[in-house]
Amino acid sequence: MRRLKAIISYDGTHFSGYQAQPGKRTVQSEIEKVLTVMHKGEHIRIFASGRTDARVHATGQVIHFDTTLSIPAENYKVALNAQLPADIRILDMEEVSPDFHARFDAKGKRYRYKWNCDEVQSPFKRNYTVETRGRKPDVSKMENGAAYLVGTHDFTSFCAASTPVDDKVRTIYSIDFEWHDQELHMVIEGSGFLYNMVRIIAGTLWEVGIGKREAKSIKDIIEAKNREMAGTTAPPHGLYLEKVYY
Amino acid sequence: MRRLKAIISYDGTHFSGYQAQPGKRTVQSEIEKVLTVMHKGEHIRIFASGRTDARVHATGQVIHFDTTLSIPAENYKVALNAQLPADIRILDMEEVSPDFHARFDAKGKRYRYKWNCDEVQSPFKRNYTVETRGRKPDVSKMENGAAYLVGTHDFTSFCAASTPVDDKVRTIYSIDFEWHDQELHMVIEGSGFLYNMVRIIAGTLWEVGIGKREAKSIKDIIEAKNREMAGTTAPPHGLYLEKVYY
Repeated sequence: MRRLKAIISYDGTHFSGYQAQPGKRTVQSEIEKVLTVMHKGEHIRIFASGRTDARVHATGQVIHFDTTLSIPAENYKVALNAQLPADIRILDMEEVSPDFHARFDAKGKRYRYKWNCDEVQSPFKRNYTVETRGRKPDVSKMENGAAYLVGTHDFTSFCAASTPVDDKVRTIYSIDFEWHDQELHMVIEGSGFLYNMVRIIAGTLWEVGIGKREAKSIKDIIEAKNREMAGTTAPPHGLYLEKVYY
Repeated sequence: MRRLKAIISYDGTHFSGYQAQPGKRTVQSEIEKVLTVMHKGEHIRIFASGRTDARVHATGQVIHFDTTLSIPAENYKVALNAQLPADIRILDMEEVSPDFHARFDAKGKRYRYKWNCDEVQSPFKRNYTVETRGRKPDVSKMENGAAYLVGTHDFTSFCAASTPVDDKVRTIYSIDFEWHDQELHMVIEGSGFLYNMVRIIAGTLWEVGIGKREAKSIKDIIEAKNREMAGTTAPPHGLYLEKVYY
């Protein structure tokens, strides 16, 4: 038995998210389906660094699984890509120690959130950036707001109220903004992220950027430990899981 | 009655091509449906510079139509975009002379054909570039082959055998190749193009680039006036109608 680690990319548009759900097309179930065929019907379970929601994309999600097949990792990648649907690709594959775990060993993650500030959004971007219809935020205000989020905080206000974990303390290492032509990207790195956390941060900082709330209000929102205090959850299709650190 | 000209963009992935066909989702029928609602049920016919096939994209298709509505062109654009599906966008709209015709007045066109030479094709490119699975052609050979095509020729060998036009003489102004990271683009401009002409040129020059045929064979193919002599028709999803000249 060997354990393989894979870096994968997927276009989230036509998936009901990462996690397997009965009767739904998900990233996990599509990969497990192919692996199960490769293992002559034996169900192979894959483990990811974490879930992503419907329409959320990944350019650097990490999974692991155990296999009895002795195919070299590089050939394994080619074989999987030949059978996977084209909206999932294995970018890289390597054999790892049998105690490596994609989720429990993750030390940090990087996400990217994309807004497109073109007045008319290109049809080619409709599933990949959130359109602002020409509205451009004041990025310096967003940076000021983001400064309050960087560091170790209880992020209860910045996760879905239903989040079923007790400890909501996480560390954000950095939040940076980049313009790529008319696209504004927010790049966020941290030790880990709660359910909807990146999207609530994106939605709240956007409101700061367009003057709907003050940058310094972010401090009060964190302290309130109340989801109601933060802004709206930004749409899923602007979000990319870009890298998992081990 | 006023005549409006519009520059439009569409992601061809989910259309059965440009032209209206009963029971199919097409670019023409989606736009006409919205215009007909705006005109309280009166059917408004649109005219394009030419058709595009299923899965072929456009970043600069041109259409015209007549309207009884007195909305200024810029507001017309906004109103149409608000009602059109997100895979079609009106990029620009202006009032033109009542004798302007999107098809008959077109003096030339520019198309772009995209190959992606990454070893593993990003899921985000699957509908927008043709994957070569890491294979890279010799572009200088393609340029040598392209040189035979530039100019005024009978392009019978480079159009679908069923093409229902008598005069197959067209002028190609230029064929250029550009690398954009791992993407190879062929940019072709000409007076007009026959059915499948750009895709047959792309498919044939690709075969020259990978050494399957000689650059100088292009001359013989043109002279043969026989579709069988040219290469395969390259897939539709690599093709973009980029500009129409008037």
